[in-house]
Amino acid sequence: MKSQFSVYNSLTKKKEVFKPLIADRVGMYVCGPTVYSNAHLGNCRTFTSFDLIYRYLTHLNYKVRYVRNITDVGHLENEEDMTGEDKIAKKARLEQIEPMEIVQRYTLDFKNVMSMLNNHPPSIEPTATGHIIEQIEMVQKILDNGYAYERNGSVYFKTVQFAEKHDEYGQLSGKKIEDLRQETRDLKAQSEKDHPADFAIWMKAHENHIMRWDSPWSVGFPGWHLECSAMSTKYLGERFDIHGGGMDLQFPHHENEIAQNVSCCETSPASYWMHTNMLTFEGVKMSKSLNNSILPEELFTGNNHLLSQAYSPMTLRFFFLRSHYRSICDFSDKGLQDAEKNYKNMMSALKAVQELEYIGKEKVNDEDKVINDLLDQCFIHLDDDLNTPRVLATLFELVAKINAFKNKQLKINHISKATLERMQTTFKIVLQDILGLLPEEENSDAVLDNVLQVLIEMRKTARANKDWAASDLIRDQLLAAGIQLKDGADGTSWSKL
Amino acid sequence: MKSQFSVYNSLTKKKEVFKPLIADRVGMYVCGPTVYSNAHLGNCRTFTSFDLIYRYLTHLNYKVRYVRNITDVGHLENEEDMTGEDKIAKKARLEQIEPMEIVQRYTLDFKNVMSMLNNHPPSIEPTATGHIIEQIEMVQKILDNGYAYERNGSVYFKTVQFAEKHDEYGQLSGKKIEDLRQETRDLKAQSEKDHPADFAIWMKAHENHIMRWDSPWSVGFPGWHLECSAMSTKYLGERFDIHGGGMDLQFPHHENEIAQNVSCCETSPASYWMHTNMLTFEGVKMSKSLNNSILPEELFTGNNHLLSQAYSPMTLRFFFLRSHYRSICDFSDKGLQDAEKNYKNMMSALKAVQELEYIGKEKVNDEDKVINDLLDQCFIHLDDDLNTPRVLATLFELVAKINAFKNKQLKINHISKATLERMQTTFKIVLQDILGLLPEEENSDAVLDNVLQVLIEMRKTARANKDWAASDLIRDQLLAAGIQLKDGADGTSWSKL
Repeated sequence: MKSQFSVYNSLTKKKEVFKPLIADRVGMYVCGPTVYSNAHLGNCRTFTSFDLIYRYLTHLNYKVRYVRNITDVGHLENEEDMTGEDKIAKKARLEQIEPMEIVQRYTLDFKNVMSMLNNHPPSIEPTATGHIIEQIEMVQKILDNGYAYERNGSVYFKTVQFAEKHDEYGQLSGKKIEDLRQETRDLKAQSEKDHPADFAIWMKAHENHIMRWDSPWSVGFPGWHLECSAMSTKYLGERFDIHGGGMDLQFPHHENEIAQNVSCCETSPASYWMHTNMLTFEGVKMSKSLNNSILPEELFTGNNHLLSQAYSPMTLRFFFLRSHYRSICDFSDKGLQDAEKNYKNMMSALKAVQELEYIGKEKVNDEDKVINDLLDQCFIHLDDDLNTPRVLATLFELVAKINAFKNKQLKINHISKATLERMQTTFKIVLQDILGLLPEEENSDAVLDNVLQVLIEMRKTARANKDWAASDLIRDQLLAAGIQLKDGADGTSWSKL
Repeated sequence: MKSQFSVYNSLTKKKEVFKPLIADRVGMYVCGPTVYSNAHLGNCRTFTSFDLIYRYLTHLNYKVRYVRNITDVGHLENEEDMTGEDKIAKKARLEQIEPMEIVQRYTLDFKNVMSMLNNHPPSIEPTATGHIIEQIEMVQKILDNGYAYERNGSVYFKTVQFAEKHDEYGQLSGKKIEDLRQETRDLKAQSEKDHPADFAIWMKAHENHIMRWDSPWSVGFPGWHLECSAMSTKYLGERFDIHGGGMDLQFPHHENEIAQNVSCCETSPASYWMHTNMLTFEGVKMSKSLNNSILPEELFTGNNHLLSQAYSPMTLRFFFLRSHYRSICDFSDKGLQDAEKNYKNMMSALKAVQELEYIGKEKVNDEDKVINDLLDQCFIHLDDDLNTPRVLATLFELVAKINAFKNKQLKINHISKATLERMQTTFKIVLQDILGLLPEEENSDAVLDNVLQVLIEMRKTARANKDWAASDLIRDQLLAAGIQLKDGADGTSWSKL
């Protein structure tokens, strides 16, 4: 009953058994965030999905080099417009601060959110500005190989010519060469490019552009698509295993990345392309203009008009995992409430399963097979392109069993000792190590409140019995213990001194 | 009684009134860590000291751009030895991992320790590998200006020639030009350098050297001293206000930085040079070989043979502040214990001062002036080159006053209402905002334990009275509240369910 890990390959549009280029090692490149604004929920979903993949590959005993870049150069707002400003530089000038100060602020915010979601830091986290030389070298190679041309200090990639010679073009995005050919020059008469589908791999900097570096063609900056080609090649080699990112990056970003790699290194970079789907709120795409977007921080504080309460980072992680990474993840307040409840039930079961004790002599019956099958299914669903909704459903079947064992509705000696131990180990591995769901800090104040209610009730009884001495004693002793009681119309409340 | 902020300038060897180049703005560059091993206590002390300076400048309403680099290239182990390996690359090959994986691991460790110590992240945290182009440009300018020569693909700085023309050389470190001249070629006959005092600003990479970039002279890597010159110039300009680092960096690092800047930009980079002193353990310099070094993590866990217990990050911060940043900071278990006790007293006073209430009609006497003088003195000592031992001593005089007010040994109406308010505000600003000492998480379990002891006592009384019903009720209600009582030989203990 051993299944094999398979992933859906966006390049071939089918599920394939995962086979790395080098046995036991995996190279994975994920397009990281652009750090000119706060991390958004889409980032969180994408990077939580790849964290899951990283965790599962690690569980499968692969040594994974996980590279996720930081885009700190910013993209042109309008590639056609040579005066278009790099987004980071624009904000910098408005705020009168150095672009790298903005980069620092939002990089810190991003890493903080990733850490709250219990996402592992990648093995290497390279920045675009940190790899300008590598990008210039790649532009030069593409020029040398005849797939780019220089025009007024900028360098453009010859998309149509590339597409005519290489089957690779359009494979990922479905973009057809006929469509490229039909785009006429007239529409973009103002552009210095030979063809509308050509894209910049080096841009001459407008005089107001702050971020700029010297190059053989001009003082300028690299085209956006180039950084990932250069950094994945530097840290993972010309060919590696997995390239991932959000679905919206398939075109033009990833399509152009493949074109750059093929024309520079004569090979498509990655064996498997994996893409995460988008987020909606009650069926509508989240966007600032529709006023239905939620920042991670707003979710964690409840400070957003769409939310009735705060949700913890672990609730958010659980919520993400309820959808398959290739499906749309639809947010709603109700859905988050459900996730919170289910997450808590799961954590209670995690505690309960560890506390189960084997009692009595083994009298193994069918239950033993049922449990083992459920445990097997967790991995079968993980192997099946990381089908987390099914993993969670299976875990909930196990939760029901765990609770039944706990409440003695099922007898523990109807499964073998080995099965109990397997259940204890596996439930924890799947939940914590692979899905990355951790128990949240126990709120000591909740327990404290429970205990204080016992004393408040005692004091109430004493007062009802007009035993003022007992009532005062409780109040005074609590005061000494650091707790102030306050009697009000709604009963007695407490506060710490 | 208004004092002015003065700092000791290592360059002029005297205390000077601080005056920034641009009113209201300060540019500060601090040499950051080399990330090929764990952050050490020396790092912690240096960066906590500059965090204090950053906080105080901010308190004085300066807008500070604080740049602290990350050295991720590694230094040559032996500059004379052309086959010498870059430290990071060496470890990488031993561990069979990519140098940038090591960089990532130790950068994360470093940032984590900084955060635990409540050190603000700098405004910009540039990496050496992220600024190779800027370094190559600086090498070219130094060559163009005649202060360097190329030899077999490496570029060396002409130290003697520079020193002969520029008073700047030796000013910081006290290195004399006569000493340079007396160093003979014979001693270093194997070197390709013209003079032993010359230093590499670009190194041709040995074929085994992993970290390498193309340049006009060779495929190689920048000399260590160059990165700080290039990055401070990029983010703070050719002249800025404060340049800081550990005292051990004065020579050769900072001396050579000045030489590079002067020969490239015709100006010494910084107005004020500030250096932190070193650490000892019971009077002996800390070092791995003497087996008397302590890692921050060991200090926080108590897991080191030199320590009798764990000390919190805030205790460590307090401990650092007890010494002036220009004095040796001598560690000992006893000293840390004292710091812990004093830190806690300080935090209790912080709480107590906020709780003081003004009672009675103002009958202001001499006490009012005493308090105001103490509050003034905090800032006078801060203005005096950040004399934190004196600031703490002054705060402890205030702590005595606060406790006397709290215990009614002093009458609150002997100071004015305004003075009470000033004391409440200022005590907090100095302690929390400027010294960066935060109250540590209140241990809710301590309060919970207090409250439970009340119930455990009640139950004990009930049992002594053979009121088993009352005794069981307490036990059962606590069980429902999530607390398990256990009766043992040493009395009753409790645990959370």
